[in-house]
Amino acid sequence: MNGAEALIRTLVGSGVDTCFMNPGTSEMHFVAALDAVPEMRAVLGLFEGVATGGADGYARMKDHPAAVLLHLGPGLGNGLANLHNARKGNVPIVNIVGDHATYHKQYDAQLESDIETVARNVSPAWVRRSSSTAGLAGDAAEAVAAALGPPGQVATLILPADISWSDGGAVVGAATAAAPQSVDAGVVETVAKALRADGPAALLLGGTGLRERGLRAANRIAAATGTQLLAETFPTRIERGAGLPEPTRLAYLAEFAAMQLAPLRRLVLVGAKAPVSFFAYPGRESYLVPEDCELIELATVDHDVEAVLEQLADALDAPDVAVPSSGPRPERPTGALTAESIAAALGALLPEGAIVSDEAQTSGLSNPGATVEAPPHSWLCLTGGAIGQGLPVATGAAVAAPGRRVVALEADGSALYTFQSLWTQAREGLDVTTIIYNNRSYSILNMELSRVGVEEPGPKALSMLDLHRPDMDFVSLSQGLGVPATRAETAEELTSQLEASLATPGPSLIEALVPPIL
Amino acid sequence: MNGAEALIRTLVGSGVDTCFMNPGTSEMHFVAALDAVPEMRAVLGLFEGVATGGADGYARMKDHPAAVLLHLGPGLGNGLANLHNARKGNVPIVNIVGDHATYHKQYDAQLESDIETVARNVSPAWVRRSSSTAGLAGDAAEAVAAALGPPGQVATLILPADISWSDGGAVVGAATAAAPQSVDAGVVETVAKALRADGPAALLLGGTGLRERGLRAANRIAAATGTQLLAETFPTRIERGAGLPEPTRLAYLAEFAAMQLAPLRRLVLVGAKAPVSFFAYPGRESYLVPEDCELIELATVDHDVEAVLEQLADALDAPDVAVPSSGPRPERPTGALTAESIAAALGALLPEGAIVSDEAQTSGLSNPGATVEAPPHSWLCLTGGAIGQGLPVATGAAVAAPGRRVVALEADGSALYTFQSLWTQAREGLDVTTIIYNNRSYSILNMELSRVGVEEPGPKALSMLDLHRPDMDFVSLSQGLGVPATRAETAEELTSQLEASLATPGPSLIEALVPPIL
Repeated sequence: MNGAEALIRTLVGSGVDTCFMNPGTSEMHFVAALDAVPEMRAVLGLFEGVATGGADGYARMKDHPAAVLLHLGPGLGNGLANLHNARKGNVPIVNIVGDHATYHKQYDAQLESDIETVARNVSPAWVRRSSSTAGLAGDAAEAVAAALGPPGQVATLILPADISWSDGGAVVGAATAAAPQSVDAGVVETVAKALRADGPAALLLGGTGLRERGLRAANRIAAATGTQLLAETFPTRIERGAGLPEPTRLAYLAEFAAMQLAPLRRLVLVGAKAPVSFFAYPGRESYLVPEDCELIELATVDHDVEAVLEQLADALDAPDVAVPSSGPRPERPTGALTAESIAAALGALLPEGAIVSDEAQTSGLSNPGATVEAPPHSWLCLTGGAIGQGLPVATGAAVAAPGRRVVALEADGSALYTFQSLWTQAREGLDVTTIIYNNRSYSILNMELSRVGVEEPGPKALSMLDLHRPDMDFVSLSQGLGVPATRAETAEELTSQLEASLATPGPSLIEALVPPIL
Repeated sequence: MNGAEALIRTLVGSGVDTCFMNPGTSEMHFVAALDAVPEMRAVLGLFEGVATGGADGYARMKDHPAAVLLHLGPGLGNGLANLHNARKGNVPIVNIVGDHATYHKQYDAQLESDIETVARNVSPAWVRRSSSTAGLAGDAAEAVAAALGPPGQVATLILPADISWSDGGAVVGAATAAAPQSVDAGVVETVAKALRADGPAALLLGGTGLRERGLRAANRIAAATGTQLLAETFPTRIERGAGLPEPTRLAYLAEFAAMQLAPLRRLVLVGAKAPVSFFAYPGRESYLVPEDCELIELATVDHDVEAVLEQLADALDAPDVAVPSSGPRPERPTGALTAESIAAALGALLPEGAIVSDEAQTSGLSNPGATVEAPPHSWLCLTGGAIGQGLPVATGAAVAAPGRRVVALEADGSALYTFQSLWTQAREGLDVTTIIYNNRSYSILNMELSRVGVEEPGPKALSMLDLHRPDMDFVSLSQGLGVPATRAETAEELTSQLEASLATPGPSLIEALVPPIL
């Protein structure tokens, strides 16, 4: 058995049975070995960012990593932004980067480059270059274990071509994740005491604390103590909808987040980090915890956050509580098509079990509020701020969760980074509904320009944020990649097109012409 | 004056007056300062690979760097593949990567990552993080000087947001390139003597040795001594066409390159490296210089290669010689549309002064031969093997050389990595004719699969190299980005569409449906 086959069999044995890939010559033995291992599903992307973002979306829904197969340093570069997003979201990925044969590297051929130095950006804790065919499967099992964490991470395995093609590969047994760290009972007691004390307090929930079990425990704590529930700004995955507790997400804009935090005397971190501004702004604070607010760390992403929340709820003798409805779902919207009317349409139509991949940026501000009474669904956010994540994550989530409708909410500017995702959706027949918010602008940058202190931007500066000249036609772009598409210019059109898309198997896209919200 | 303005003014003062960019919030002060410096042209790309590849194409035609502006680590990742290509082609680029404010980095915000470690992949010799607003312009001048070389390189300047926005910037004077190394007269004499000796010899020309002055000197040498003229496989820029000496390019396939080199007893390197296989293959040699062939290094890319070639020609007392015609230009092709008939159409129609950006891969094999008697033109190749270079390089070349028609020859698979380039071409009104060779396959990988020893690939492996399911429609894709497009299914259609495109200002695209060549 050659190294490639032993590698793939070992991955499958560890439950890593899907590989998102954009391979080249140095990966051809891996590709050839796919036919020997029918359990491994191979998903082709036309661009590496599709593959890495696909693996991210997949693992968010499976809670188990997929593999990625990339072609040398430039392939890793093309996939880097979405690996960055996965790293920031603590999402497990087994990132396999093919390289030249060991003896070929000395010749500095065209594609030779320092892969390790790029990999360290997204895999600071686990980069390995396999050095023997006999040891390759063991390296792979360790990569899976490293990826699983906790916390989940991107483990990068560099695979020289000759290590892959040589005979002498030997499959090794399944990798297992390390047990999460436990939280000392004393710490739980301290937090319980703090939450019983006077003055406004909040839990800031992150990571798996935003899954159903964690949210229900947090809700018990909130009901028993009056503690407010906050969620990190860009959750990796939050379970939400009718009957589920909805924490208040910290605002993206630091000035609004500061207002949310200002009343607090105690902030308890539960799988989340202390809140900071997304960017720095001249004359404004980066660190957002008020000076007179006590910061208490209950659990980090190294812990079993859901179990810790239950420990805390038990320590407080907090009983189960039902989540009251906040009101009816929105009506189907009519009239002008705006970001708000799209939010209403989503609120009216989002089906049970939907998975929302949210990269709507400024246009998406109304979506969480409008969908809070939709049937239970999962919501996936832009964890690392590197745009071009929404369409690949939707693609990978759909691979991971057949039978669930994926809805990608996508800003026009962001869509263009990894638009190739649509082709993979068509090829794999994935049930993905994409809404493109086409406001013909990097709208968020128009806002940021004034926030960083540029009072009167000139025409050249503004032209760098403007996506007119020429207008993009997302219907044509989508059809060009094999995904049927329609254009909506009124709320009624959007609503009926959304309804049709949700009811039609396979992918489809709606281009929504909306004004910028600002 | 803030740092950003001092930076831009210093760049302009050093002749770096074009910036290809895809900025974000941390770069907003740079963007705002553009209006204060009208001499700086700003070219927006919808994806970072367009910006970096654009700067590559620009510098190949200008012999002077453009600047690139990218957004933190993920933006650098997205631009990395084309910076890799520039690095391998010794193309100068001033690569500016915005970062968080200095004091903000400690908070590990969403977009925080280790930029330096990524940058080292493409800028092994020059990465600097500016640490003061007063010193920023000096850093920029040094970056320009470093980029200029010789040899040209990617110099990466990391620009923290507060260094950019703070007052206290001071413009510094123009950067100058270091003088190229000179070649000792004794070395030239040794080579002259070797070329006068018996037995087949060749010059392997690379870098600026493939410009007109270098080629004419090489031609004198060849005529005087019977030395064969070879060119590296993927020149950064080669000047060619009627009346110009045409060296034989080393084949991409190592087995063919080995056949080209087998008869030689002496191989003289002139701005090129010793030939090696592009990839390693089981049981085949990577190093291609025959054992009984003497390898002599006359000049590297550190030298003024054209001057060295003239020194050598003079040392040989070699007179000027005219280049005879190799025959008439091809007729306009008729009948079935194939890669060969496209080559004939190019040979028949390529206008004087054209700039060809060649990423046609397997489909392009006949193009050089068919165009050797076309009027003089420049030909730009895939220097680093990282696909997704052709359309951005065409874009940047057109920015650099208004009045010259750019022709992008682009494989379908490669086109999809940086297809966003078309939007920039439309926005800037660039005279670019793009031909997409749509053979609905990663054709080169089908060839490589058998070359690496996979005798009977299975259906899963083959499906990873197949671009059917769904078929891409490049006419729709192009129109979606604002570039008019047509589809050709016969040689006559292709020829008339090409003629029309060449005669029409602005960009246009032709989708050529061709069978794979294998």
